[in-house]
Amino acid sequence: MKPIKVGLLGLGTVGAGTFNILRRNQQEIMRRAGRSIEISMVAVRNSEKAARLIGDTCVIVDDSFQVVNNPNIDIVVELMGGIEPAKQLAFTAIANGKHVVTANKALLALHGNEIFKAAQDKGVMVAFEAAVAGGIPIIKSLREGLTANRIDWVAGIINGTTNFILSEMRNKGLDFATALKQAQELGFAEADPTFDIDGIDAAHKATIISAIAFGISMQFDKAYVEGIRQLQAVDISYAEQLGYRIKLLAITKRTARGIELRVHPTLIPSTRLIANVEGAMNAVLVQGDVVGASMYYGKGAGAEPTASAVIADLVDIARMATADPQHRVPHLAFQPEFIGTEAILPMSEITTSYYLRLHVSDQTGVLADVTRILANFDISIDAMLQKATADESQTDIIMLTHQTQEKKLIAALEQIEKLQSVLGSMTRIRVEKLT
Amino acid sequence: MKPIKVGLLGLGTVGAGTFNILRRNQQEIMRRAGRSIEISMVAVRNSEKAARLIGDTCVIVDDSFQVVNNPNIDIVVELMGGIEPAKQLAFTAIANGKHVVTANKALLALHGNEIFKAAQDKGVMVAFEAAVAGGIPIIKSLREGLTANRIDWVAGIINGTTNFILSEMRNKGLDFATALKQAQELGFAEADPTFDIDGIDAAHKATIISAIAFGISMQFDKAYVEGIRQLQAVDISYAEQLGYRIKLLAITKRTARGIELRVHPTLIPSTRLIANVEGAMNAVLVQGDVVGASMYYGKGAGAEPTASAVIADLVDIARMATADPQHRVPHLAFQPEFIGTEAILPMSEITTSYYLRLHVSDQTGVLADVTRILANFDISIDAMLQKATADESQTDIIMLTHQTQEKKLIAALEQIEKLQSVLGSMTRIRVEKLT
Repeated sequence: MKPIKVGLLGLGTVGAGTFNILRRNQQEIMRRAGRSIEISMVAVRNSEKAARLIGDTCVIVDDSFQVVNNPNIDIVVELMGGIEPAKQLAFTAIANGKHVVTANKALLALHGNEIFKAAQDKGVMVAFEAAVAGGIPIIKSLREGLTANRIDWVAGIINGTTNFILSEMRNKGLDFATALKQAQELGFAEADPTFDIDGIDAAHKATIISAIAFGISMQFDKAYVEGIRQLQAVDISYAEQLGYRIKLLAITKRTARGIELRVHPTLIPSTRLIANVEGAMNAVLVQGDVVGASMYYGKGAGAEPTASAVIADLVDIARMATADPQHRVPHLAFQPEFIGTEAILPMSEITTSYYLRLHVSDQTGVLADVTRILANFDISIDAMLQKATADESQTDIIMLTHQTQEKKLIAALEQIEKLQSVLGSMTRIRVEKLT
Repeated sequence: MKPIKVGLLGLGTVGAGTFNILRRNQQEIMRRAGRSIEISMVAVRNSEKAARLIGDTCVIVDDSFQVVNNPNIDIVVELMGGIEPAKQLAFTAIANGKHVVTANKALLALHGNEIFKAAQDKGVMVAFEAAVAGGIPIIKSLREGLTANRIDWVAGIINGTTNFILSEMRNKGLDFATALKQAQELGFAEADPTFDIDGIDAAHKATIISAIAFGISMQFDKAYVEGIRQLQAVDISYAEQLGYRIKLLAITKRTARGIELRVHPTLIPSTRLIANVEGAMNAVLVQGDVVGASMYYGKGAGAEPTASAVIADLVDIARMATADPQHRVPHLAFQPEFIGTEAILPMSEITTSYYLRLHVSDQTGVLADVTRILANFDISIDAMLQKATADESQTDIIMLTHQTQEKKLIAALEQIEKLQSVLGSMTRIRVEKLT
């Protein structure tokens, strides 16, 4: 069979990785795909630097539109990142009847609905395994491996930077700022780490996961996003004493009242396998009604793991290129005519358990006051820990609650914080048992 | 699109599970597959019992050949187990141009090469996700998710019965016989547990994994198989003290000298995620040159997890039915013309580390004698533990070796066992660091 021709947009870390792996494992990939996959054109900002990297094995251009408008190219691989011009390039490629492979989670979380609609109308594929946890075939597992299941929920550690920082904070007792600085020095966090540490990157990925798990459209604007910037070392330590680890978890869950979609620091029982995912590794735990729990673990980022996902998509497209579009794996796992309309629940409506830390003056009756307020809101306590502080007249009270609705908890906290014996604001971190 | 018609052979645990899930999740599966999947004929031994189970929703017959010869059936699902008549039925179904879905690992490990050849010649698909770790889409991940990778090795806990027994032995300090009895009472082990505890079931699955990981034919007859029957509680305890857990591991590895394919009890560092896979759960760790390590975790057996895999295969076939055969995912991950000829290495040629336990009389010079013999065979020691026993004149010496070739170790052990101070035979368990 004749080679399939690929145009590559961007030759940064992942682009260069994709180029190199396609060359290094050419034979192995050919043995699987049955035809060779050739990068015939690359669009870059700096064509001289690109020429030094990849030699004269393919045409190098500085105008990306030359790639998406090139009639000889079958598949466009978009690895530029960002919204524009990636979005316009994707639409142009689709309009020109090309398949698209992208690692661009922001683009899909924000504009996936229109992009998949355009691809559907044109009968081309948009593949995005690389957009979520590159080293783990989680998109494929959800879209194809678990098709027999009604998915109940998915919970994932899907941002390596924050997991690295949290692991360092726990293992070395560091505070957030120090751990972040180390992560930056080691290349695990970017100079501007906002997208990672504020949870936005994880929320983009969670939005994609929620769509393919439940057969709904992308609703990034409805996602609740809370990062790890505020997390204190003391809470990691108290959590540990209670038998929990704190992870930045992306959670999407089907409930009778709507779909939950949220990213926030989360206490997980330390006996759970996913609580033991350390460093920059990713893991996604899926609960399906037929298989029960299954977990997928691997590297989430980096040149080669992401390139692995890009190339797997290229092989898939090479294999499915001749299938009639109705028989291909649907973009969002479910056939377009069956995409549901379930709304994402507002955060105040979700139900979970909570870790609470109060700093109180050590006087009779404080605990009675606090627990009475919680009881008034039907919030019951699962575990408690009282810890002396340096100042003998003050103490830390740490509580784990049973499940309650977020808005009830917020209302209770408002009353508790007004108590005279409660000093400063309370710390509140959500708890998930993942069962 | 019109429904795809399925004929089911066998209505035991998995057959009934498949029937029930297809009914229970009919809507969810239709939303994904784009067409409905209908079981239109079931072959069973006891048709009255079957009628009570599934009502009159489809034709029930007691002659399986009526199913595989029925011109209205598109896909035959074989869930009878065993070699005959399953083998003849599979060949007849293929000859009649039907796709086949099977959970029969023994059939594939022993006769997969001929079955896939026949399917290839006829242009039909034989799908077998359910044959290995049903609750985990590991076949799909290896065949499709990791196509960019040259797979270095795969190591898996792929037999739930033995993992349950080993977990119980460790957690409760039980001996093998007691743990086995409990497992049988709880339904985790069969009345005749031979296939599970002697490692044969795991070896069938490992044979399938080795074929799709490395693009070689099935070579079950070359697999090394050692079960957990001989494993003693004391070694689980010593391993723990050295920082290891003992698991029945299926390992297949590409080396410069050939492919390793082996199933045996294995010490794994207890900090590894896979060492913490407990009870009847399965996990498969894959090392690829591009993604690095990735792990897949879930239920390995049981009606519903296996049915989940069977139905995922049905959806895949429904989707790929119209693709031309050259563009489908190849049965053994690699195109038939590119299946390699690498041989499985004899066990004596493999390289690994070892846990050794010697029972010795506590006299001067024993250790010097033992270590001198090991040194003569170039075997160096990584860690050692000496433990008093009830009899003060005797002691246990436990050693972990560095990597060596199995035949060297066997030769060294022969000499060591001849030492007068060494009492009885030595215990030897392989160690894998999995890095």
